[in-house]
Amino acid sequence: MGKKIKLGVLGGGKNSLIGVLHRVASTMNDSYEVVGGVFNSKWDDNLSFSENIGLPPNRVYKDIDALISAELKLPEAERMQAVSILTPNYLHYEMTKKLLENGFHVICEKPFTTTYQEAKTLYDTLKKSKKALGITYTYTGYPMVRQMREMILKGAIGKIQKVDAQYYQGWINSIIHDPEKRTSTWRLNPEKSGISCCIGDIGTHAFNMIEYVSGLKIESILADLNHLYPDNKMDIDGTVLLRCTNNTKGVLRASQIATGEENNLSVKIYGDKAGIKWEQENPNYLYFMEEGKPLQVLKPGHQYNSELSLAGTKLPPGHPEGIFDAMGNIYHGMAKAINNQPYNSGEFPNIMDGLRGMDFIEKAVESHQKGNIWINIEN
Amino acid sequence: MGKKIKLGVLGGGKNSLIGVLHRVASTMNDSYEVVGGVFNSKWDDNLSFSENIGLPPNRVYKDIDALISAELKLPEAERMQAVSILTPNYLHYEMTKKLLENGFHVICEKPFTTTYQEAKTLYDTLKKSKKALGITYTYTGYPMVRQMREMILKGAIGKIQKVDAQYYQGWINSIIHDPEKRTSTWRLNPEKSGISCCIGDIGTHAFNMIEYVSGLKIESILADLNHLYPDNKMDIDGTVLLRCTNNTKGVLRASQIATGEENNLSVKIYGDKAGIKWEQENPNYLYFMEEGKPLQVLKPGHQYNSELSLAGTKLPPGHPEGIFDAMGNIYHGMAKAINNQPYNSGEFPNIMDGLRGMDFIEKAVESHQKGNIWINIEN
Amino acid sequence: MGKKIKLGVLGGGKNSLIGVLHRVASTMNDSYEVVGGVFNSKWDDNLSFSENIGLPPNRVYKDIDALISAELKLPEAERMQAVSILTPNYLHYEMTKKLLENGFHVICEKPFTTTYQEAKTLYDTLKKSKKALGITYTYTGYPMVRQMREMILKGAIGKIQKVDAQYYQGWINSIIHDPEKRTSTWRLNPEKSGISCCIGDIGTHAFNMIEYVSGLKIESILADLNHLYPDNKMDIDGTVLLRCTNNTKGVLRASQIATGEENNLSVKIYGDKAGIKWEQENPNYLYFMEEGKPLQVLKPGHQYNSELSLAGTKLPPGHPEGIFDAMGNIYHGMAKAINNQPYNSGEFPNIMDGLRGMDFIEKAVESHQKGNIWINIEN
Amino acid sequence: MGKKIKLGVLGGGKNSLIGVLHRVASTMNDSYEVVGGVFNSKWDDNLSFSENIGLPPNRVYKDIDALISAELKLPEAERMQAVSILTPNYLHYEMTKKLLENGFHVICEKPFTTTYQEAKTLYDTLKKSKKALGITYTYTGYPMVRQMREMILKGAIGKIQKVDAQYYQGWINSIIHDPEKRTSTWRLNPEKSGISCCIGDIGTHAFNMIEYVSGLKIESILADLNHLYPDNKMDIDGTVLLRCTNNTKGVLRASQIATGEENNLSVKIYGDKAGIKWEQENPNYLYFMEEGKPLQVLKPGHQYNSELSLAGTKLPPGHPEGIFDAMGNIYHGMAKAINNQPYNSGEFPNIMDGLRGMDFIEKAVESHQKGNIWINIEN
Repeated sequence: MGKKIKLGVLGGGKNSLIGVLHRVASTMNDSYEVVGGVFNSKWDDNLSFSENIGLPPNRVYKDIDALISAELKLPEAERMQAVSILTPNYLHYEMTKKLLENGFHVICEKPFTTTYQEAKTLYDTLKKSKKALGITYTYTGYPMVRQMREMILKGAIGKIQKVDAQYYQGWINSIIHDPEKRTSTWRLNPEKSGISCCIGDIGTHAFNMIEYVSGLKIESILADLNHLYPDNKMDIDGTVLLRCTNNTKGVLRASQIATGEENNLSVKIYGDKAGIKWEQENPNYLYFMEEGKPLQVLKPGHQYNSELSLAGTKLPPGHPEGIFDAMGNIYHGMAKAINNQPYNSGEFPNIMDGLRGMDFIEKAVESHQKGNIWINIEN
Repeated sequence: MGKKIKLGVLGGGKNSLIGVLHRVASTMNDSYEVVGGVFNSKWDDNLSFSENIGLPPNRVYKDIDALISAELKLPEAERMQAVSILTPNYLHYEMTKKLLENGFHVICEKPFTTTYQEAKTLYDTLKKSKKALGITYTYTGYPMVRQMREMILKGAIGKIQKVDAQYYQGWINSIIHDPEKRTSTWRLNPEKSGISCCIGDIGTHAFNMIEYVSGLKIESILADLNHLYPDNKMDIDGTVLLRCTNNTKGVLRASQIATGEENNLSVKIYGDKAGIKWEQENPNYLYFMEEGKPLQVLKPGHQYNSELSLAGTKLPPGHPEGIFDAMGNIYHGMAKAINNQPYNSGEFPNIMDGLRGMDFIEKAVESHQKGNIWINIEN
Repeated sequence: MGKKIKLGVLGGGKNSLIGVLHRVASTMNDSYEVVGGVFNSKWDDNLSFSENIGLPPNRVYKDIDALISAELKLPEAERMQAVSILTPNYLHYEMTKKLLENGFHVICEKPFTTTYQEAKTLYDTLKKSKKALGITYTYTGYPMVRQMREMILKGAIGKIQKVDAQYYQGWINSIIHDPEKRTSTWRLNPEKSGISCCIGDIGTHAFNMIEYVSGLKIESILADLNHLYPDNKMDIDGTVLLRCTNNTKGVLRASQIATGEENNLSVKIYGDKAGIKWEQENPNYLYFMEEGKPLQVLKPGHQYNSELSLAGTKLPPGHPEGIFDAMGNIYHGMAKAINNQPYNSGEFPNIMDGLRGMDFIEKAVESHQKGNIWINIEN
Repeated sequence: MGKKIKLGVLGGGKNSLIGVLHRVASTMNDSYEVVGGVFNSKWDDNLSFSENIGLPPNRVYKDIDALISAELKLPEAERMQAVSILTPNYLHYEMTKKLLENGFHVICEKPFTTTYQEAKTLYDTLKKSKKALGITYTYTGYPMVRQMREMILKGAIGKIQKVDAQYYQGWINSIIHDPEKRTSTWRLNPEKSGISCCIGDIGTHAFNMIEYVSGLKIESILADLNHLYPDNKMDIDGTVLLRCTNNTKGVLRASQIATGEENNLSVKIYGDKAGIKWEQENPNYLYFMEEGKPLQVLKPGHQYNSELSLAGTKLPPGHPEGIFDAMGNIYHGMAKAINNQPYNSGEFPNIMDGLRGMDFIEKAVESHQKGNIWINIEN
């Protein structure tokens, strides 16, 4: 691996759920070292949190501007090379822009921005910057998702004739059925969270997963969203009909009112020779259904898996790895880009994933608002 | 039970797959006795088949007209009381009509007819006849489907907020990708099979299942069907957006090109208190997901099940029963109607299930042809 | 098939659980016709039960002697050819003996007899009789159990190096923990039920299953049984160490105090090339684990299955069949023997299965009583 | 957490599988910082490996003696407080002894030592040292294993009446069937690996798991081991009959010739009210089977879990964590002991687990060698 990449972190401090995910993931393959950041907006929290995770106070900053200006003054060997952005969505755009323009590589949580236009602007910023940018669609880091992608790309299922993805959760029930909560929570406030809740938060994962594993592009969509209550401004459920490359049809279902479901993301791709399925809650099983043959269940770490899949497993078969390990794989791939080493395009989601995700969200809402009509995805 | 019902059979002879299903199902609960019928259109096959299943030659008939006229001449105690129709779809209408008009009870395979108009005519015929009619949507006979229905009707999941059904198969691949076969098979010939293949054959099962377990009515639909090849005249895949009673939203997916899938019918109903799922290929498990509680898996034969569910299980827990037993339960329920005994409305699918199924098929095709627009289901 | 076999039934009437299983199974493949029998010992029950299942009163008998003498007077074409014995275990011996000696074929429930000596006597009786005898170890009738056997016999797993079977139930809890019940129930009374409860009732199934699927003979055993309470006279749980042909080692576990388990019979056979597993509660899945390859899951009805396995499935893949269908397959195989047609030795359990099962039960109890020592199985 | 514990590592360098497991686990909860160690015995490997993981060369040592003497000269604030021992088994004893005697806390891989006598000596050493010692029986770190333990201890299954554990793998096939390999590999050489292969490596995990989750002590055992070939000196498979506290019976099965199995550890405990099961390859599911009620499936992160179980989950339900996370939980618990903070006795395996494990191994081999007789476990 060589020397570790010096990593800064924005957000992810006290009360954050994903802070630990990124922090552990970055260290998993000995490729990064967290050296500082802005963890909480309240200074006391910021300072005490950074102390808890063993950081020196002089690398903890008041805000992103302070971080940038101070880090740029450090000798290159000590300076942060990359920064992870874990803040609320509406800050992603500005932070990514400033970081890229000042010469930092960026790892950004999804959704990438709050509008498609912002994402397009960042596309240009990135081009100019010559830096690396990764977006943490975490689920693409699972070894069996990578195996699925590579089997499909190598023709294992033949010509794709149907795609189907589901992302079902039930957690919004306690908010959506309470008139007080549903009109006051920031999650259902378009000014704070963008124009979509369910499609923006999880539908976009399903969209990304279909494109990642199938290699197809989703070209146009017809969406039927659900708000459940007239005074709720954002979708909390939706079904989206899909047309992909070569007119391949498909469907994407997302819900936050699928009561009792935890984090039930699944993807099924059917070709003219075989079908293949994967489910996030049991991520170490890949189901390959070849016509007229026994169902095959592939598992991580076996030599029958692709090189990329095998590289994403640290222990022998039978030792279940999970979502921290999946995120670790994405960080590991991104490290290669930062270090200018060769990497496989499937190793981490990039600006195009961010861009297309934002386009999808806006077009899904537009299709619904115009009465469930077909709308093209731009790219 | 008392005396056995004397049952005739139309179709289901040599080369039939479902003949054995109906024959075994009818005898399972000691409520019927097969006494004769028309098993094959070729006289030799008809005769030798009936001999094989132990029937006397004098109750084997050339066609339905011969059957009706001969049976009506028999003393009432010997005469067929009910007739099962297992012939190709396009014969269902005429046969049902004649049988009802001549005083026979009818058990008919699905789809009920080939057009919605025919089904409406039979609705009137049935009313006048005062006979019993059952339609073998077999899957409603499984004990855990009955348990699902009754739990939902009793409020176990609260107010329904989302319905989702899938029926995926892959068997049509060998036909659809062969230009010769796809233009010559009767299954894809609208003149022989009606206007729809996938929606008509299996989509209608998913439609029926949603209405059966949820107690909701599907009120309007938007369908996106797939023919895969321009020279193929019938859908072999489709997704249908649903609006049910109280504007409840949902989605129904059906496919015959889901390569590697066998007979993967599943239904998920989500309420504001809990979600509930069932899968046909593992019919003895019912998944109940109450918010914030452990997943519960219900199984047949336990005292925690409803009376109707328990009545559909013949052995104690742990002795898997299957689709023959499910069909047996439907026959058993229908026997009560024939014998003028009280029965639960969930015991067998009736004329309304047949009627609504035909309406659904026609409206799905219409929605697709008109460019994926919303169309109302009539009833 | 030709003409149906005329079948008599002993037991299986009112309040019987297995009566319906045998009755349905016998008719499933159009090979038998139940013509009479002795269904209950109380005459009124006997008569009303037989009427319910549609039998004429003149073929319902007071007891086995009346049955034999009356049937022998009938012309051969009308006479019962075979009789199914579903009575309590202690009656099996005498009934089987009389039936064979009087020229009837016999289908007998397991355990075959109450002592090994009785089984040996019947072995001689059978030899002299030249009749067919089948013992309903039902689980060997499942298509995937047959597939397992034939794959192993054809070398799919290589040389067997380990066998492992489990049969866990929890139903005896409500009896065993109640001092009143455990000392009064007939099931735990050696005079009524033989010398063993758990090993005799279910351990013997696991024993038979190992020998059936592996083709090995179990040659010696060391048993550790459990009575749980000093005043309980019979085992309700036990583990048995096994030595099979070629000194292959293995283990068999059986329990009626495995609380919450329903009917959890499973068998795993490991060879030097692959392993293979089957579980009774999900009988339509067979797990084949070849070293360094994806797990394969075989299902019924596919052409990759053996001829015998395929013959045991009535519908295409994806239509789950269950225990009634498994028993139907055993009856169907037995019909070939009765009709003097060729059959595969795996089609139904025979006298040797009954004999070896009785030997196993007696030796397991002996091993335990002598302090968990090794004892040879005779044959 | 406060300040991080300074951790040294012995072993786990180049070519090590478990090095990454311990390293990642130690950092997962921000409670440790790896500061140095002896990673490989070859100096070049040692140095380059430590550089790769970002350690300064001055804290990389030639051997344990160099480490101890150099670290003791450092000011207390910089000095290693704890050392993880990941070296081959035969070195555990000496290293643990030296470290404890010189004031270091110890985290040691299992098996603890190579003989029971060594373990007893270390027990005394530890007592005198007043240091903390943890043994990484990793599987006890899974949240659902902790939940299982606490449910059982709180009486959820009632009085335990049967315990059953399995640990099946198939990896040794490629060695054991090759006459060359089986007589030359260090794993099957008693001088290098101790007296047992299968029982020592994995049987001891199953033993520990039973005692951990049930709270019972295993008091005596009868073992039947398998060497498969006369020229193989060590067991590669075995079944062990168990007698636990209160004469509770049970069975433990371990195998390295269960072809096709990966790392199939499972444990089932049956009480007089309910049964409960867990399987390592699907570690996020806990099956609770209460008599006459639906099966319950518990999952991590839900509020219905115990405090200790919840503390072992970093993300909300539906985000699968794996074996790295389980090991992280054990390191986290051990950190509390090192920091003299209060901790739950279930948070990490201690000297007694190591001691009892060694006793079990020796007694299993003794029981087998003496002809499968009962032998007492000492403690």
